[in-house]
Amino acid sequence: MKGMMMQRPLRISDILEFGAEQYQHGEIVSVRTEGDIHRYTYPEAAARTRQLANGLLAHGIELGDRVATLAWNGYRHFELYYAISGIGAICHTINPRLSPEQLIYIVNHAEDKVLFLDTTFVPLIAAVKDHLPKDLTYVIMSDKDKMPKDMPFEALCYEDLLEGQPATIDWPEFDENTACGLCYTSGTTGHPKGALYSHRSTVLHAMMIIVMQTSSFVEGSKVLPVVPLFHVNAWGLPYSAPLSGLSIVFPGSALDGPSLFKLMDDEGVYSAWGVPTIWMGLMAEIQSQGRMPKGFKDVVVGGSAAPRSLIKAFEEHGASVSHAWGMTETSPVGSHGVLPAWMADAPLEEQLDIKQKQGRRCFGVEFKIVDEDGKRQPHDGKAIGELFVRGNTVVSGYFNNEEASAKALDPEGWFGTGDVASIEPGGLLVIQDRAKDLVKSGGEWISSIDLENLAMAHPAISNAAVIAVPHKKWDERPILVAVAAGAEKPDLAELQAHMEEHFAKWQLPDDVIWVDALPLTATGKVSKLTLRQTFADYVHPDER
Amino acid sequence: MKGMMMQRPLRISDILEFGAEQYQHGEIVSVRTEGDIHRYTYPEAAARTRQLANGLLAHGIELGDRVATLAWNGYRHFELYYAISGIGAICHTINPRLSPEQLIYIVNHAEDKVLFLDTTFVPLIAAVKDHLPKDLTYVIMSDKDKMPKDMPFEALCYEDLLEGQPATIDWPEFDENTACGLCYTSGTTGHPKGALYSHRSTVLHAMMIIVMQTSSFVEGSKVLPVVPLFHVNAWGLPYSAPLSGLSIVFPGSALDGPSLFKLMDDEGVYSAWGVPTIWMGLMAEIQSQGRMPKGFKDVVVGGSAAPRSLIKAFEEHGASVSHAWGMTETSPVGSHGVLPAWMADAPLEEQLDIKQKQGRRCFGVEFKIVDEDGKRQPHDGKAIGELFVRGNTVVSGYFNNEEASAKALDPEGWFGTGDVASIEPGGLLVIQDRAKDLVKSGGEWISSIDLENLAMAHPAISNAAVIAVPHKKWDERPILVAVAAGAEKPDLAELQAHMEEHFAKWQLPDDVIWVDALPLTATGKVSKLTLRQTFADYVHPDER
Repeated sequence: MKGMMMQRPLRISDILEFGAEQYQHGEIVSVRTEGDIHRYTYPEAAARTRQLANGLLAHGIELGDRVATLAWNGYRHFELYYAISGIGAICHTINPRLSPEQLIYIVNHAEDKVLFLDTTFVPLIAAVKDHLPKDLTYVIMSDKDKMPKDMPFEALCYEDLLEGQPATIDWPEFDENTACGLCYTSGTTGHPKGALYSHRSTVLHAMMIIVMQTSSFVEGSKVLPVVPLFHVNAWGLPYSAPLSGLSIVFPGSALDGPSLFKLMDDEGVYSAWGVPTIWMGLMAEIQSQGRMPKGFKDVVVGGSAAPRSLIKAFEEHGASVSHAWGMTETSPVGSHGVLPAWMADAPLEEQLDIKQKQGRRCFGVEFKIVDEDGKRQPHDGKAIGELFVRGNTVVSGYFNNEEASAKALDPEGWFGTGDVASIEPGGLLVIQDRAKDLVKSGGEWISSIDLENLAMAHPAISNAAVIAVPHKKWDERPILVAVAAGAEKPDLAELQAHMEEHFAKWQLPDDVIWVDALPLTATGKVSKLTLRQTFADYVHPDER
Repeated sequence: MKGMMMQRPLRISDILEFGAEQYQHGEIVSVRTEGDIHRYTYPEAAARTRQLANGLLAHGIELGDRVATLAWNGYRHFELYYAISGIGAICHTINPRLSPEQLIYIVNHAEDKVLFLDTTFVPLIAAVKDHLPKDLTYVIMSDKDKMPKDMPFEALCYEDLLEGQPATIDWPEFDENTACGLCYTSGTTGHPKGALYSHRSTVLHAMMIIVMQTSSFVEGSKVLPVVPLFHVNAWGLPYSAPLSGLSIVFPGSALDGPSLFKLMDDEGVYSAWGVPTIWMGLMAEIQSQGRMPKGFKDVVVGGSAAPRSLIKAFEEHGASVSHAWGMTETSPVGSHGVLPAWMADAPLEEQLDIKQKQGRRCFGVEFKIVDEDGKRQPHDGKAIGELFVRGNTVVSGYFNNEEASAKALDPEGWFGTGDVASIEPGGLLVIQDRAKDLVKSGGEWISSIDLENLAMAHPAISNAAVIAVPHKKWDERPILVAVAAGAEKPDLAELQAHMEEHFAKWQLPDDVIWVDALPLTATGKVSKLTLRQTFADYVHPDER
């Protein structure tokens, strides 16, 4: 028997209209490519978004059309999110750190009709334009009087698209499963694959992450998404913020420690979300200034595992750190390392034991771990297996890619994450490693993440990665690639001594190689793939 | 184009399993009809709920069957909520304050298969049993050794239903629009009408109210639903609590001020939700003891408008009061009077101006106000009209009642609430009155609620109601029915003098009638209908 309740589609446009009506004092502050700071309220954002939507309609954009963006975090990018999906088109966010080949591939694969770009990226597009669709319209996200001189290709001005358009609109109604956004994974092998989000998945995700950590969503406080709008919807913040009355501070392109510190300090940012590398930069500035940015209390870390030492440093400065886990294919937040309430008074080291984990699954996301035969493993905190996920915010396949779609789900309909994890009886997720980053030595698995964490706790090391190298006897052995914090570069014996308190001897790295910096992926994670390529000819000490 | 995201039904069983896994320290504390206090954790609650579900299946309960409850707020009632809906049956909560005729009507109309009841209600059922379905199974919610002696009818014991049943279950999957709960409105005219909730509407509602007021949902804190489980799902708290990691304190049947005070004080309840009459009783106890119950900070008032004086009294004792609006047909929370963040430092009186209003609509609920011709009125804070609502948590009709269903929605598909309201430009809802409680004097409307609020601000008055009485010249005129706070009973002239600062002279009541108590409806609201009946023969002073 069916309930007798109204059926209303979950729609993204309803989020913005809700925020604009209910949080009229809510503000969006943006560092612009023009160089200044722009600020306006939610009602003003909504009015411009409606104008933009009318402009897109006037330009002939229809339900299901892909409209691409290549831009930093700013108010125009925010407007595009809502205007494009509001009219039933699909907002295709492009990561500017992709290689030119990948960029060409995804614009053609997505069959984008329009490409919106920040002035920053004009040279990038000029270089690849001949390989992009001939009928693609380019729109520069700039004031009219700040449009680049000597544009190397024909382009409209964003503000012209809005001009003369009414600031009212009847947002169209459509099935809540209608596609709203497209984000390609910066896959390390093969072509990028597109996750195609729906209005339903996006609205549920926006509510989910608020329900998960209510303390991060305090009406009237300011959130700063360091995580880019071009990277999995900035983890859903552009949707959750208007829903809960947070103001948003968009940092533009300057994500170095000093720039972030100043912006956060000036604006009184309460909560900021980003990847570990960003927080390392900010922490260096915090330590240099000897204080936190004003009002900064809530650090959300995602993208890759945060080193314990980094979490500890923020906690000791009075902020609360939580650790989110997810991926492009999971919208992205799958779990959130909220400290359980009953741990609130535990000693810091015990809290860190919990905070290092990837935490609780969000309501609506289910986890299972399976062995190599696909057999479910117990959630006992001991068994380790590949993590599979299921839920309304998880992809069922990839956009226009039958081959990848066919392989995306297991026979039970769960998505394989490629992460290797254990799950504690209380439900806490512990990511052991990316499946391909595990080191298999003499038939036993060694977690590269655990070794890296411990290495980074050494005062002489500012960043570190562990990779597997071939070994005749043991198949694989771990080596440590490290970035020195200062002049001191301790030798292997000292580092092994530092680590052997927590690891068995056979688990310790067999070599240390000092580098100036670690290579990063397009989403700011340490690129193990690049490291493995760099050290492809490395010979293990035993075999020299 | 559709998104490529998994389709998972929103299910109530997932809420309990989530809470049991993620909030293992979450507790449910219940004052039992057996007289003692019962406490257990979410995992223990889930285990017993699964046993109960297996017991219901063994008893032959199937998808869509109605299973009724007649019970106070306690852990067994909580288990029934999840077990019944978890297996796809429909939890029909019965309000024990209904008249015997209404009770007979709804049990027969719902075609209940099983009726679960607290021992308290054995005499009530014994008196009407001959008029209930012959094949109805009765189950007493009691320990085995506390089963009533000399039962006047045949009944099972709740614990026998669980005994020997496995504590594991694969909750069935079904369409998210499957019915899960049935709650009859205690209609003032005609037969009660049944609102038939769905899994989708219930899960969305549970998330909605957390998103609406994140500060009420602080993991590890305790919430006390004074609002009964037999009244619109206790405003959704049994679902929102496990979702957000709140512990629940169920007060059983003793809802008087001293009993509530002691329970809240003993347990350290942070948040409590109930109707104004309950809070009046508690405030009397607070004033008598000169202190608040330990840790009590968050008062949520709903069911009917809270007098300003009551809100003020709690605020002055350090609690934050918010005012929810809704009805059986809206799941029930439609709006929530959260104080906007930018008002946080405003003087108390200005805050009270806001807190007296019914507040912000929940995300997912839309409001419109219309005049007598159904024409939309502006949301300008001035125009007044009947409030219509739309959303996934709003009924589309009534269970097995074609006549009422046909009249439920307007031609645009919105539900008419029968409330008269204005809506401010910032979206705040202000309920002026129930349509039928407005006083129409000389063609002008007078709000009975506003007059009552002001009357109750007089120190000599503890409770008050304004009703319309017939008048030859003006059609209707307002009179005040009041309960004295002490021995003093001021005369009409003094009360008018007290009120005329805020009202035009022609809006003031023409008479005051002192009574010992005001009649209440089955849901604890002042019954204007009963008052109008009581004063049916009243003659206005002008016509005596």
